[in-house]
Order: sequence, then C-alpha cells, then structure tokens
Amino acid sequence: MRFINSSYEGLKDHQATQLLFLFSLCLLSSINIIEATVQHLKWEIKYEYRSPDCFKKLSITVNGLSPGPTITATQGDTLIIQVTNSLITENTAIHWHGIRQRGTPWSDGTQGITQCPILPGETFTYQFVVDRAGTYMYHAHYEMQRSAGLHGLIRVLVPEGTVEPFSYDEERSIIVNDWWHKSAIEQSTGLLSLNFSWVGEPQSLLINGRGRYNCSLAGTTDVCDMTNTECLPFVLTMVPGKTYRLRIASLASLSALNLEIEGHDMTIVEADGHYVDPVIVKNLNIYSGETYSIIVKADQDPLRNYWIGLNVISRKPGTPTGTSILNYHPNNPLKVPPTLPPTGPLWNDTLYRFNQSKLIKSHPDHIEPPPPTSNRVIILLNTQNKVNGYIRWSINNVSLNLPTTPYLIAIKENLRHVFSKKPALETYKYKTYDIHSVLKNPNTTLGNSIHRLKFNSTVDLILQNANALSPNISETHPWHLHGHDFWVLGYGLGKFDPQINPKNYNLVDPIQKNTVPLHPYGWTALRFQADNPGVWSFHCHLEAHFFIGMGVVLEEGVERLGKLPKSIMGCGQSKSLVRT
Amino acid sequence: MRFINSSYEGLKDHQATQLLFLFSLCLLSSINIIEATVQHLKWEIKYEYRSPDCFKKLSITVNGLSPGPTITATQGDTLIIQVTNSLITENTAIHWHGIRQRGTPWSDGTQGITQCPILPGETFTYQFVVDRAGTYMYHAHYEMQRSAGLHGLIRVLVPEGTVEPFSYDEERSIIVNDWWHKSAIEQSTGLLSLNFSWVGEPQSLLINGRGRYNCSLAGTTDVCDMTNTECLPFVLTMVPGKTYRLRIASLASLSALNLEIEGHDMTIVEADGHYVDPVIVKNLNIYSGETYSIIVKADQDPLRNYWIGLNVISRKPGTPTGTSILNYHPNNPLKVPPTLPPTGPLWNDTLYRFNQSKLIKSHPDHIEPPPPTSNRVIILLNTQNKVNGYIRWSINNVSLNLPTTPYLIAIKENLRHVFSKKPALETYKYKTYDIHSVLKNPNTTLGNSIHRLKFNSTVDLILQNANALSPNISETHPWHLHGHDFWVLGYGLGKFDPQINPKNYNLVDPIQKNTVPLHPYGWTALRFQADNPGVWSFHCHLEAHFFIGMGVVLEEGVERLGKLPKSIMGCGQSKSLVRT
Repeated sequence: MRFINSSYEGLKDHQATQLLFLFSLCLLSSINIIEATVQHLKWEIKYEYRSPDCFKKLSITVNGLSPGPTITATQGDTLIIQVTNSLITENTAIHWHGIRQRGTPWSDGTQGITQCPILPGETFTYQFVVDRAGTYMYHAHYEMQRSAGLHGLIRVLVPEGTVEPFSYDEERSIIVNDWWHKSAIEQSTGLLSLNFSWVGEPQSLLINGRGRYNCSLAGTTDVCDMTNTECLPFVLTMVPGKTYRLRIASLASLSALNLEIEGHDMTIVEADGHYVDPVIVKNLNIYSGETYSIIVKADQDPLRNYWIGLNVISRKPGTPTGTSILNYHPNNPLKVPPTLPPTGPLWNDTLYRFNQSKLIKSHPDHIEPPPPTSNRVIILLNTQNKVNGYIRWSINNVSLNLPTTPYLIAIKENLRHVFSKKPALETYKYKTYDIHSVLKNPNTTLGNSIHRLKFNSTVDLILQNANALSPNISETHPWHLHGHDFWVLGYGLGKFDPQINPKNYNLVDPIQKNTVPLHPYGWTALRFQADNPGVWSFHCHLEAHFFIGMGVVLEEGVERLGKLPKSIMGCGQSKSLVRT
Repeated sequence: MRFINSSYEGLKDHQATQLLFLFSLCLLSSINIIEATVQHLKWEIKYEYRSPDCFKKLSITVNGLSPGPTITATQGDTLIIQVTNSLITENTAIHWHGIRQRGTPWSDGTQGITQCPILPGETFTYQFVVDRAGTYMYHAHYEMQRSAGLHGLIRVLVPEGTVEPFSYDEERSIIVNDWWHKSAIEQSTGLLSLNFSWVGEPQSLLINGRGRYNCSLAGTTDVCDMTNTECLPFVLTMVPGKTYRLRIASLASLSALNLEIEGHDMTIVEADGHYVDPVIVKNLNIYSGETYSIIVKADQDPLRNYWIGLNVISRKPGTPTGTSILNYHPNNPLKVPPTLPPTGPLWNDTLYRFNQSKLIKSHPDHIEPPPPTSNRVIILLNTQNKVNGYIRWSINNVSLNLPTTPYLIAIKENLRHVFSKKPALETYKYKTYDIHSVLKNPNTTLGNSIHRLKFNSTVDLILQNANALSPNISETHPWHLHGHDFWVLGYGLGKFDPQINPKNYNLVDPIQKNTVPLHPYGWTALRFQADNPGVWSFHCHLEAHFFIGMGVVLEEGVERLGKLPKSIMGCGQSKSLVRT
C-alpha cells in the first residue's frame, strides 16, 4: 500500500470514516499483495488569460492548466481531490465522467442533481474509487462552464500483472474539443434570450488545447497573435516501428468530430473503459463525452512528418480543420508535412457515422452479457421546442429545468416543494408521431419530474431522434449516463418500433459505454442495471443542449444511502436544514 | 396606511414577525395620521446585451434595466425586495447604500460580511425601513460585480407635510458612472494576476446609463453601432423659469467625476441624505458612493439647449467628456448646443477639490451636533503594497481578505476559524512614516482581523493618504461606511497630527455623510456613534481598490441581535449548522 500526499486536513467526518473503511480493506487486501493507492490532489480552479488558438481570452484553468492535469491512477485507487474555487464570482462543480461513483453518489459533481455548487473561495472535497481500468475524463458540470476549458483526462490503469487484450510500446493521450472566442456567459446569455442568439460554429478545433485561428479575421490585433507559442500545434512524436496506444477523449461543446491520422490506420480497442472487439478504421468519429483507445503503428515513411486532422461532422462545418503533427523521430517536430491535412468524411454522411457506431462491439474475451430482458422500457423522444417563445430542447415534450435544490438532497432529506412528484413521462405517442416533420405546434413546458427506478431493476432507455425546429434538420445528440454503464443493444434509422426492433437487439456481445450517439432521425437502444443508489443524470452531452433542457433524471435506492455529507449542501431548500 | 403589492408569499418567519411588528406600529401610528407604506418589489437580476455607449456587451440588469429601476419611497416606509438571481453561474448580493439597516443588519447586502452570496436560481428577500429622507443608491456588493451595471437610485421622500429647507418646482435624477468594454470578470482576473494587468481608463462616462463611444476605435464593427438608439444622449428637459432639484449619485467604479451644466450655477442642498448649508458652485466634484441634491434654475436663454458635461478628475483622463443635453422646452430635445461641452476643472487641481469638500457643512436648521469627544481613535493609513508579488491595497499595512463565511454569521453563531481574533491594527507609526515617499519595502500581508467596538461608544476614524507604488502618485479614495452616517470633522493636506489637528475639528456644523473623499497626500477625520448592532464594512468605494484589500470591518453589539435569518447562510462554515 503506497500513499501519495498523506495530508488529510479538511476532510469531513464521513469522509474520514469512509477512508478508514478503505484503509481496513487495503490492509486486508495487502495480504493478497494488491496495491491500492490513495491519491490526494489539490486543485485550484480559476480564470486565466490563455491563447489556445492564438486568440487571447479567459479560460478556466486547473492549477494553471487548460486542459487540466491528466489524472493517472490504477484500478481500485481512491482519489481525494480538494477543489478550491477561485473563480471570483462564479460557482463550479466537477463531474468525473465515466467513474460510476458506486457508494459515493455525492461525488458525481453534477450541480443541481448531486450537489450544491461550490462557491468562490470554498474548497470541496471529492472522494471516490476508480473501480475499473479505462479512459475517462473530468469536466465542469455547471451550466455551460465546461466550454470555458475546465476539463481533463483520467487514465485508470489495469492492476500490475493484468494483461489487456492488445499490446503497444507506449501510450499518449489526446483531448479534442471545439473553441469559441465568446465566453460561456456570453453564449449562455444568447441561448436564454427571447430573441435567441446563437453563437454559431466554433472558431477553432483544439487538439490537446492547441488550435490555430487566422488572426487576420480578428478585428483588433492586440488580442490575437499567431507568433504566440501557446498556439503552436500539438506534436505527437513516435519512434518508427513502434506501436502506440492513443487514448482519445472528446470534450467538445457542440461538434461531433472526426479524427484522422494521415496515412495511418487506427485500430479501436477500447471505448468508454470497455474493451472493443478490434476494428480497423481510417478515421474515428468521436462524439462529445466519448473516449476511445486506438492502436497506431509508426509504420510509414520515417523521413517525413504526418498530419493529424480533426474535422467537424454532422453539422455543416464553419471551422477549419484542427491540426496536429505526427512527428517521426528524429525529424524536426515542427517540420510541416508535404501534404494537406485530412479533411475527414463528408460532414453529412450520416450512414458512414451510423455504420461506424454499429462496428463497436465488446471484445470476445471481455463480454459481460446484458440481462436478456428488462423490467421497464423508457422511450425518450428528442425534440426542439419553444417554451413561451424561448427555444428549448425537450424529452417527451418536457424541457428539463433543474431545481435550485439538488435532487439527491431533496429526496434523501424529504424536502418538499423542490420538484414535481409526478413521474416523468415514459414514452411519447410513437404510433402517430411523424419524426421527419417540423412540429405543427412546437410549444411545450418546463419540468423537473424524474424517473424513479426500482433498485436493481433492469431498465431499457430508447432514444428517439426527430426533426428540429427547421425543416430537414435532425441533429446528432451524444447521450451520457451518470453512475452506470449501459449496454448498447442497437442503433436504427427511422422510428423505433417497440414491437419489432427489440427482436434484433444485440444481446450477445454489445459494447458497454456511458456515452452514445443518437444519429439524425435515428434511434439508439440501451439497457442498464439500476444498481447504484443515487440520483443520476442522463442527458445530451452538448453544452448548449443540456443547458436548455435536454436531459432526464433517474433515481434508484436513495433510501439505502447513509448520511449525506454536509459539504454538498447550502443551496435552495437545504438551507431549511440549518439549525440556529 | 397603503400597501403596494400585498403578496407576502415566501417570506421567512422572522420577516413575517418583523412585518407584524411593523403592522402594529403602523396601526398605532395611523391614529396620528402618519402614512407608512410597505413596498413589495420583485426583481430579477440577469445578464443582457446592452449598448449604453453604442458598444454591445453584457450588462447586469434589474428587471431588464441598467441602471435598475429607481426606488421611490417615503421616510418610514418598509421595503421588501425579493431578488431573484438569474445570472446563470454567478452569485450576487445587493447593498442599499446609505440605508443604515437599523435592526436589520442582515439586509445590508455585503457579501462576506452580512450574508452569503445569493446563488443562481435563488431568491433572497431584503427587508428594511428607509428611516430618513434623502438620496441613496443600491448596487451589487460582490467582488467587482457593481461595475457590470447592477446599480440604481433610491429616493426617500419626506413625509407629507414636512418642509425641506429649499424649494423647487420639479425634480430629476442623474446617475453618473464610468464604463469599460471588458467584463467585470476580465477586469478582476487582471487585478488578481501576478503580472498585474490593469484595465486602464474607462472607455466611456455614462449619464443615466448613456454614453457615446467612438466606434471607429472598435476593431470589429458588428459590436459597435453609433446609430443604436440605446446610446442616444440622456436629455434633461426643463421649462424656462422653473427651478429643479437634481438628485445626483455617482456609481463610478474608478473615476472621481465632475459634473457641470453649461451656463448654470448649482446650489448644493443635500449630501448623502443630509441637508447642506446651501453652497453655490460652477460644477460639482462627486466621488463614487456619494449622492447630492443640487438646485438648478432654468434661467438662461430659452432658445437653445445646453451641454451637461461629465469629466474625470484626480486621474489623468483617458476618457472623453460624457455628455447629456439640458433641453429648454419646447426646443427639440436633441438639438445640439452651439457650444462645446464643459471640460471641467484641471484634472490635477487637488486644491480645488479639497476646497469644495470643505465647503459642505450642515444646514443651520438641521444641525445634529457630534459628541464633543470620542472614546476611541482609529487611524487608517492607506497604502498600495505587494503581497507575494501581487499588487494590493492595505490599511495599516494589512490588505483585507474577506473570509468565505460572513463575519455576521461567524460572530453571532460563534463559528471558529473563520477570521483572526487578533484585533485589527488601530494606527500606524505616524511619527516616522513618510507619506510622500514610495515605500522602501512594499511587501505586506493579507488579513481578516476586525475592529470590535463598544456598543454606543463614539469612534473617530482618521483616514491618512500616502504615496502609492509609483513616485509622486497619491490617489483619491472615496471611503464609505455601512450602517451609519459619520460627521466629517475635518480635511487636511499632509500628515495628520493627533496632537494638533483635532483642535481644529469642526464640532459646530459638520455635515453627516456615509461617503467621503480622502484627497491625495491628505487626511480626513470622521466621527460616528457605534449604535447599530451588526457588522459593517468601511472601505474605499472604488471597485478595483476594495476588491484587492482596501477596507476594514467594524463590529458592534452583535450580541443584542435576535436570531439571524437562515436565508443569509449556506456558505463556508455556516454549513456546519446544517442538521442532517
């Protein structure tokens, strides 16, 4: 048992107890020579001026970095992360995306659902176990704050001695995202305006926090400087002949992205922490909230460098290709490749993306088969609507409006008047609904009802896409489930038929994931086990979509939880719990 | 007794009790035909795009307005203001500047001192009595948020039948402030950076929220539009021959300002809610946080309009004159005067400003004489320093750093570890200190100690100015006291001598104020009665100065207060009061 930074000052009682419990476990385990580590991290979250694409604007940094520091841990480790909010007037909350938080639902970091926001000047301690190897991420989970740059990667390694179903010489990590010059607050204000003001396509695509904006397009020259070393391209150096594992995470706010490495095939071997039956692709479609590991071999002409190209797909691109350099050692890292960067697949080739999604299945040696049937089927129609003239996204005709008191506190502490006790709608009128047409009456309502699930029941979630407010537009929505992985039972184009489509579910080797695309005019069928006491969000991972209502909330087994930590409280009706 | 909006839903118990008490008082009073009103206001605070000087940026609005709505009440009225924070990710708190909050210290709205900040989505109810007629203001009191435009005027009228010591036909209100195109968050981030980044002089000066930026200086044309009607000048229309009371408030973030009405003398009759022995001036120096009423007679050539000019003083101006039009009815309101706008006094004529400050004395019929002696003298040296390389402002060599738990809660609830129990320093080494030189060692420390005052004692506060970090620079600091008015016993240039200067205090007819300038290299002597149970800030009213430490905190009689409202809690150590 080794400890990294053994300072536990400031830990709350319940956390100390939990830690003690863990210690005991570790002591017991050490007999079996299992190494369990407690990592204690101290993070400061603040605004700083950065020029990731040569354009200077405020970014949110973690200990000075955006993207923040990569967390590297080993399966079974406990992470204790003391987050100090130095954002001056803005609150924050950080979600550990892909970590299931089994037994620690209050550490999920979803403002309005599992915790009150962390106030400026305050320190909140997240503590949880990373119980499964794989590639994960963290990011702000508070309105549109993620798009200001508060995000990073989590690598959970397999325990020593465990063999993974693929081999490589070295590994590298890549975060991809889209970037705007308008602040998250400016973007949010536009979305909340009656005269809806859309920020438009991103100015840049970033690879590991580096992009390149054409400064001649910026009006004032003092905020854009193409000689700034902050916007030199990211360079991925490989030694000819070696094999690399690339861990890739998309933290995009809006864009579905395609990553291509010029002249190099990619073998997909991991998706959201699960081993994939290896698939070779020319380029990878990656949706916001997804992670993949790919294997790439440095087997091309070693005398030159190659482009890594990042392109927008599924929306008409208004952003230049994001580029990095694949550098063959010992060439000059910044030696420009003699070619043009990959431009990716056609942006509107839905079938291409649909087919790649269907390729991803569980590795034959690592299949955890899904329960053959489910106890409950929830069908979720995705539509764009209007509420009192404001544009909103809705699920089954209700646009989610988070209460000011987090659901977890409200349910556990029996606080009244926090959210509607009427259950959320479980389906829509699929027999008569035309998913290919613009709604004749787009008006709908806000709501905060949730789905309460029987503990340990098996639940199917069917996502159904439809037409948006404009004719012939159906967007791609990457849906992310907190607290669980789901099995991806099937993808379809058109309208899901509950009588027919389940017959073709893949119950043999479906991949497990936590984020999955819903393709234009298509459907996606998922199954999961409601076996993790807590309150969990299931939502579109696009910042601008979840921000204006595109999500649902699931609850299971909250009655099984012990005392909630006081640190998650302080907002809304939880003030009624103050004794004076 | 009349009621405006009698809906009391959502009022907390203690407020209901207070209200009931007030009702009883009113009922009793009604026998004496005194009219006491309860005004119930509902405010929504949000970001909206505005172009006050033709340049489009986010402003913070109150019910859609920046400046916010003017509150008009009558002396003795109770205001119940339900503030809903719709700022998305930012907290807020609103201070009712000049209202002493006798018996309601938790409604003072000073984040970190009297309340936790109001979280997005939450509604906080301020309730207080406006117990003295006069001109006051309200504004955000949370880091530098005020400079985003959250401010407005409070007019408290004398009770019917009361005669004021001046007469006029009509009255008008004027708010003056300075305006930047960078957001409050961008400005704050610059101030908190190790490589201190100063936002520079304001882009515009606004009169009633209207200025005029030269859009040709803006790089991108789409954010600046000189044809936008939002940036048409404010027009003050007068009927020839009539006499006007102008209520003027400065909500400037940084600039000392001078207001001049071309060709019209001004008679100063009220300052910070107190009647002034009438003084005639050509133009008015007004410091951030001050209010004045002036009498202006429309006695000039009625065939033309006149300029109202607003100019920066005491700092080398980098901002054009702010202009409004004094329109003589029935001329065209926008008819441009045939002259040039007033340029005000020389910006660096300290003596001019010093002498005008000394002119302001109490009206002979309204003198409330100060206690002839004081129980305690606190001398406050104002210096600019460095703390670990960061530029800060300090008082007696300590730079104020507000705790995350408000002092009022910490003291009343006996919370430990919130702030240092060591008393704040009461003086500096004035015998040897050279106020005219740059400090040889500018390094100092952060602190959160306070001055605890004996209830009902008389306290002198002596402000002493000094040289800043650059040679030959001593700035003007407008100091504002919460919860009280003070008597202005004297102003001096040079170093205050506690043996000599008090002999020349004005104990006969000093004006009472809540905000007062401290002139370059000068001193200002104040006296007040510590008769208002609560915790009160005394600070420089410049946003950028208070934000980096320029203030002190005073406490008196907290033990006399009843239960604190739960609504002010939720942050920092007040979470320890949550029972679960």
